[in-house]
Amino acid sequence: MEFISGVKQKEDVTISQILAGDYIGKTVKMRGAVHNVRDMGEVVFVILRKSEGLVQCVFEDKPAAEPALPDTSESAADVTDEAESFAGNSLALSDIKNLKEESAVEVTGRVVSEVRAPYGFELRLSGIEILSEPDEILPLAVNKFKMHTSLEAKLALRPISLRNVRERAKFKIQEGIVRGFRDFLMSQGFTEVHTPKIVSRGAEGGSNVFKLDYFNKKAEMGQSPQFYKQTMVGVYDRVFEVAPVFRAEKHNTTRHLNEYVSLDFEMGYIDSFEEIMAMETGFLQYTMELLAKDYQKELNMLDVKLPDVSRIPAVRFDKAKELVAEKYNRKIRNPFDLEPEEELLIGRYFEEEYGSDFVFVTHYPSKKRPFYAMDDPEDARFTLSFDLLFRGLEVTTGGQRIHDYKEILKKMEKRGMDPADIESYLMIFKYGMPPHGGLGIGLERLTMRLLGEQNVREASLFPRDVTRLEP
Amino acid sequence: MEFISGVKQKEDVTISQILAGDYIGKTVKMRGAVHNVRDMGEVVFVILRKSEGLVQCVFEDKPAAEPALPDTSESAADVTDEAESFAGNSLALSDIKNLKEESAVEVTGRVVSEVRAPYGFELRLSGIEILSEPDEILPLAVNKFKMHTSLEAKLALRPISLRNVRERAKFKIQEGIVRGFRDFLMSQGFTEVHTPKIVSRGAEGGSNVFKLDYFNKKAEMGQSPQFYKQTMVGVYDRVFEVAPVFRAEKHNTTRHLNEYVSLDFEMGYIDSFEEIMAMETGFLQYTMELLAKDYQKELNMLDVKLPDVSRIPAVRFDKAKELVAEKYNRKIRNPFDLEPEEELLIGRYFEEEYGSDFVFVTHYPSKKRPFYAMDDPEDARFTLSFDLLFRGLEVTTGGQRIHDYKEILKKMEKRGMDPADIESYLMIFKYGMPPHGGLGIGLERLTMRLLGEQNVREASLFPRDVTRLEP
Repeated sequence: MEFISGVKQKEDVTISQILAGDYIGKTVKMRGAVHNVRDMGEVVFVILRKSEGLVQCVFEDKPAAEPALPDTSESAADVTDEAESFAGNSLALSDIKNLKEESAVEVTGRVVSEVRAPYGFELRLSGIEILSEPDEILPLAVNKFKMHTSLEAKLALRPISLRNVRERAKFKIQEGIVRGFRDFLMSQGFTEVHTPKIVSRGAEGGSNVFKLDYFNKKAEMGQSPQFYKQTMVGVYDRVFEVAPVFRAEKHNTTRHLNEYVSLDFEMGYIDSFEEIMAMETGFLQYTMELLAKDYQKELNMLDVKLPDVSRIPAVRFDKAKELVAEKYNRKIRNPFDLEPEEELLIGRYFEEEYGSDFVFVTHYPSKKRPFYAMDDPEDARFTLSFDLLFRGLEVTTGGQRIHDYKEILKKMEKRGMDPADIESYLMIFKYGMPPHGGLGIGLERLTMRLLGEQNVREASLFPRDVTRLEP
Repeated sequence: MEFISGVKQKEDVTISQILAGDYIGKTVKMRGAVHNVRDMGEVVFVILRKSEGLVQCVFEDKPAAEPALPDTSESAADVTDEAESFAGNSLALSDIKNLKEESAVEVTGRVVSEVRAPYGFELRLSGIEILSEPDEILPLAVNKFKMHTSLEAKLALRPISLRNVRERAKFKIQEGIVRGFRDFLMSQGFTEVHTPKIVSRGAEGGSNVFKLDYFNKKAEMGQSPQFYKQTMVGVYDRVFEVAPVFRAEKHNTTRHLNEYVSLDFEMGYIDSFEEIMAMETGFLQYTMELLAKDYQKELNMLDVKLPDVSRIPAVRFDKAKELVAEKYNRKIRNPFDLEPEEELLIGRYFEEEYGSDFVFVTHYPSKKRPFYAMDDPEDARFTLSFDLLFRGLEVTTGGQRIHDYKEILKKMEKRGMDPADIESYLMIFKYGMPPHGGLGIGLERLTMRLLGEQNVREASLFPRDVTRLEP
C-alpha cells in the first residue's frame, strides 16, 4: 500500500530560500514563467517570474571568454567553475533565443551575487527544461513594469493582465488587508463565522437585490450578512465574516461593484457606538503595521505611502455639512443627505485641517439608515451610526443596532414593515440580545483608496459591474 | 474635534484575563448572558454565558451566616471581606430570583477559587446590572448541556439553539479548521484570492446550477471557483480561497447542502498529482495540531478524538473496488462508478486493515470527471485525480488539470463542448500555463465527520437544502 505522509521538500528552490541560505556559488534548480527574454547577442537575459518576484538568469555563448557582466566579488577559481558550468551542459544559445515568453520552465544555474539584479543575485544558466509552452504570443505587454493600457483593455484580458507584476502586487496588498482584519479581530476575542449568501430576504431591503429561483421559492442573494452576524452575537458575543455580498445597483460608477467582498464584524456588550469606531481604528492600526512589515516590496513597487491612523477625527453628520459649506462656499441643499461631492469635500477638509486621510462621520439621519439602526435617544431624527470616509470615499458603514424586541417592532411598524417577513431574525430580540453594533467594510474600496487608484475595478480581481459578467 | 485613537481596555473582564492574572480575592465586573438561574432557597447560582465559556456566580441572602459552599482555601479575614462584599451592596435576593434567562447583564463580584466551578473560580455577587432583557421565555432548553431535541427542531430555532454551548462548540472547531487551512497554506507560499460568485457559466456545467438574471443577461451562481483559481495559478503560482459555492442539486440527503463553504487551493509547477495529496495531508496534520492546541476545550466538550493523519493510504479507484468486493462479498456492478455504499465500505476497509480514518482514492474514471481533468497518459480511461474519503465520506475532490491549450481543446471537442462559451478561461492556456492541480474540500463535510455527526446540517450554521431557505 502506498501512503502519503505530508509535504515533501521540492528539488527546486524559491527566492526566499536563496536569500535565507548559503547559496552563492552553488548550482540550483528554479521554476517559474519566462517573463522576458532580452537578447543581447552572445549574452541572453531570461527573467523568470515567480510568485515572490522576478529572477534574473543569464546565458553566455562563450563562457571561456570575458564574462559580459564581470562579477568582481568572485575569485578566479570561481570563474573557472562558472566556465565549466556554462560549458558542461547541452544548453545552446539557440535554445535560449527560441524560448517563448510565458513558457513554464525549470532552469538550472549557479547563484552569483549581482547587485544590479532584483534581490542581489542572478543565475548563470546551465540548463533549461521547458515544462509547458504557450500556444500564442501574449496580446499585451504583461512584462513591462507599467503596461500603459486602458482599464477596459486590462479587464478584457484580465486572466493575462494580472500576470503583470504591478497588477498582481495590488492583490497581494489586498491579501494583507484581509489578513490584518482577521488576525486583529481574533486577537480581540472575535469568532469567525460563515453565513449563507442565498437568503429569503435581504437585510437592506429595497429593489437592489439579485433574485433567484430556489426550488420554486423566491430567494435573493444576500446584500449583507447583517441579520446573521447580529444573530451570531447572541452566540459568540463578537463575530466577524469575510465574504462576498451582492447588490443589483444599476449605478455604473467608478466606486460601485455589483459583487464585492465585505469585511463584517459585530460585537456585543458595547457601551456606546464609539466602541465600534475604536475597534475599526484598531484594525487599521494593526493592518498598516502588518503591511509595512510583510508587504513592503509591493508597497514600494506601487509607490504606496501608508496613511497615518494613529488617531482618526470623528465629526457629526450635520456638523460636517456645516464645516464644508462654510469653508468651500457651498449651500446645504438637503440637511438629511450627503452628496458624493460633499463626501469628497469632507475628506478634503479633514486632510487640510487635521492632516488625516480618514474621518468618521457620525449620527447619520434616521431616514437614511435601515430599520435596525438605533436612533439617538437625544434626537431620534439621527442614529447612533457612522460612515468612515477614506480620502473622501465611504469605505465603511456601521453603528449600534436596536437590541430590544418591542423597540424594533415599533420601528418596523413606523416604516410599514411586516414582522412576519423576517420572523427568524426577530426571534433573536424576542429571546434576548445584548446591546451591540458592528460594521461592514468594502474591501475593494479600501484597497482602491490605499493604492491611490481612481476606479474600484482596479482593486477587484474579476470585477462585476452592470456590463461586466466576464472574465 | 473628537479623535478615535484605537481600542480602549474595557472595565469588565474576560475569563482569560482572570485565568492569566492575579484576580483571586478581587472584585471584578463581568458581562454576559444569563444562561441559567438555579434557585437553592437562600443561595442562588447564576451561570453567566460568555463567548469563552460559562462562569458560575453565587448570591447568598445571609452573608453573615455560614457560607453554603465554605471555601476552605480562604482565611477568616477573607470570609469577613466576603460578608462585607455581600452585605455592602443593594442587591436583594428577589432581584436575583427575578432574573430572566437570556438577559444581558453586567455582574459585580469577588473572584473566589472554587474547584467545582468551570475554570476553577466563581464570582460572589455583589451587584447585577441588567443591560437588556428578553421579551419571552426561550422555547427550548438552550442551557442544558445536551438539548435532546430533534435536528428539525434545532434548525427551526437555529438563531437560538446555537446559543447552546455544545452547538456553538461545533462551529468554534469549524473556525479552527479554516484557520488551519489558511495558516498552513500561507506557510507554503500560497496567496489568498477572492473570485466572483456570480458567473456567466459554472465550472462543472450540467443542470445543477442556480440561475439568476444579471441586468438582463443570463448568469449563474458559481458551483466552484475552479476556472478562477486555475487562472490565478498563472499569476501567483499557488493560491487558495475560502468561499461559498452553490449547487442546485435536488438530493435531500444527510450529506448534501445546496450552499456550502469550499476550501480550495490550486498549485502550479507540480511534478505529479501526488503532490496535491501531499499538500492536503500537510494541511490535515497542521490542522489537527492546531485543534489540539487551541480548541481542546471544545474537543473535550464534544468528545471528539482527533484522527491520526501521520500517513494516509492511497489506493487506485479500480483496486479499491476490487478490495471491497472481495472482502465484503459484493459484486462490482459498474467498474466506472462508485456507489455511496462502496465509499462507506472503502472507508471501513482502510479503517479495519490500516487503522486509517482517511483514504485517498486515486485515478477516477475520465467520464466521471470534468473536461479539465488530466487523463492518465498510461490509460486515458482514468484521470490523474483523487477523492479523499474521511470515514467513508468524500470530503475532497482534486487532481491534476490539463495545462496545454491544444489538449484541452481536443478534450472539449470530444465532449461536444464549444470553446466560445468559456473563451476567457481558455485564454490562460492559449498564453501559457504551468503544469498544475488542486482540490476543493467541503468544509461542512469535513467538520461533520470530525465531530462524528450523522447529518451535514449539524455542521452548517444556517443550512441551505432543498426545503430550507430560512433561518
